[in-house]
Amino acid sequence: MHSSTAVEQCLYESAEEARELYIHDVVPRLKSPPTALEFYRHWVAQNRPFVVEGGAADWPACKKWSSKYFREKYGDKVLSVAVTPNGRADAVNNGKFILPEEREMTFDEFLNEMDDETSDVFYIQKQNSNLTLDMPELLPDVVEEISWATEALGAKPDAVNFWMGSARSVTSMHKDHYENIYVVVKGAKEFILHSPTDRPFIPHKSYPLAQYLKTNGTWTVQDISSTPVPWVSVDPANPKYNEYPMYKKAKKITCTVKAGDLLYLPALWFHHVSQTDGTIAVNYWYDMEFDVKYAYFQTLDKLNGLLGR
Amino acid sequence: MHSSTAVEQCLYESAEEARELYIHDVVPRLKSPPTALEFYRHWVAQNRPFVVEGGAADWPACKKWSSKYFREKYGDKVLSVAVTPNGRADAVNNGKFILPEEREMTFDEFLNEMDDETSDVFYIQKQNSNLTLDMPELLPDVVEEISWATEALGAKPDAVNFWMGSARSVTSMHKDHYENIYVVVKGAKEFILHSPTDRPFIPHKSYPLAQYLKTNGTWTVQDISSTPVPWVSVDPANPKYNEYPMYKKAKKITCTVKAGDLLYLPALWFHHVSQTDGTIAVNYWYDMEFDVKYAYFQTLDKLNGLLGR
Repeated sequence: MHSSTAVEQCLYESAEEARELYIHDVVPRLKSPPTALEFYRHWVAQNRPFVVEGGAADWPACKKWSSKYFREKYGDKVLSVAVTPNGRADAVNNGKFILPEEREMTFDEFLNEMDDETSDVFYIQKQNSNLTLDMPELLPDVVEEISWATEALGAKPDAVNFWMGSARSVTSMHKDHYENIYVVVKGAKEFILHSPTDRPFIPHKSYPLAQYLKTNGTWTVQDISSTPVPWVSVDPANPKYNEYPMYKKAKKITCTVKAGDLLYLPALWFHHVSQTDGTIAVNYWYDMEFDVKYAYFQTLDKLNGLLGR
Repeated sequence: MHSSTAVEQCLYESAEEARELYIHDVVPRLKSPPTALEFYRHWVAQNRPFVVEGGAADWPACKKWSSKYFREKYGDKVLSVAVTPNGRADAVNNGKFILPEEREMTFDEFLNEMDDETSDVFYIQKQNSNLTLDMPELLPDVVEEISWATEALGAKPDAVNFWMGSARSVTSMHKDHYENIYVVVKGAKEFILHSPTDRPFIPHKSYPLAQYLKTNGTWTVQDISSTPVPWVSVDPANPKYNEYPMYKKAKKITCTVKAGDLLYLPALWFHHVSQTDGTIAVNYWYDMEFDVKYAYFQTLDKLNGLLGR
């Protein structure tokens, strides 16, 4: 029969074997994009990331977009901006999962705040297809869809998001239920990645939901719900191995995406993202298939939950 | 924490959810083959079977092949035939996993034996690409590869096999590490199928390896190796639910493939096959990807092994 330890050991070994089977040690860097069929067969179906070097280098955005350009052309435009005291929006702090304050401001105001290192931390990171919905003027500078991804996945992107922020903004480790094409237009982003098959090494906990709010110049954390939000409990950039010794076994794959590069980030891959100052990016979220590999991941996730991860 | 029962329950629930997510209740029947990209996206990546009705109806084989035709054209040709006393080649009997006797004989001799219901059971079922290796004369009557499958999978078939036998031959439930395109040329085959995600409900045991041998007119079972062979221990056509109560929860999908029809049987799907008298078939084995869904299946398989399945 088995014990808790035997099940744990089985999950650990399987995660290690999965890596040997199908995960590259580094994120492969292609010189040109795959065909639709190659994309599906080699990358989507296998749930493996890749970078196309210079895959978006010829987009007008890569030549035109800058703080100066945005000030001149769209300075008065009103945007929704995530504001935090510390650059940690949608992250765990002091035992709570804390959302950013969402603030409406003009592009000019945002750029002033973003550049002020003594200020709070301002990040355009609204993931509601804010490029198409809130900034359609910018669409002609990019593409409405990634042609080979749309052909492969059989549908247009579900959302196209615009991101702009400073090095003080860091995105905590999480996963998305989307196939993600991530294009850096200016600056650079560093991704720390884990395959979903590494789930047994990635500790999770549940946290009450809260939100940062600034009132009369003072930050508070306002409780929103005691219904717990499950989130990755380790910070891969500064892991507490004493607390989470199993995380030592996780395979950390780091990947720098520079201006003009395009990253395919497969659905369910854990990712932590940091960036240089003034980084601008656009990402395309395509619906994922809730298919056999999703079903298997759900099983793995539940078993880990049962083991207290 | 958890117990054996909790892990078992988790695996059961996950298998049931997997079905709801991605498995059809019946094998879908298409009127025409998919494109390469559709095949990969909708069927291979999702690990789901389908039938193309009449997908091979225009092959010369479907018009020409019969016992009479083979006697006239290839009566003297020597073939390798699987012979058993009971039609159960590669199956468990009396606590052993028993291979058939392999016998060389002419096509004429095979056809005489196949048609004699008082004889032992003779089945051409050698899965070493016997069509291309042993019967290249028959190749022009079929196709060397399934064009949309070759394009999708990025490689030609690894093996093309010829099958001919009577209703007394039954293939016990098992799975293959191949993507399988199965074409029935004459007669009909009935497949009993289970998705790999049903693994928690499908009992396995390990059996010593043996082989049927007929010496001086008497059948014996000769032991080959005591190294145990893991095999499905339930007969889906006649399940002993008292012994394997969990098998009641398995989702049994039956699928009849008639002359001219083409079945895509995804890698790792459990299948049990029976047939009408004089059934002729050709199957194309394409290498499978040892990818993320394979890695996940391995985990599931090991966990079930740990639970004694």
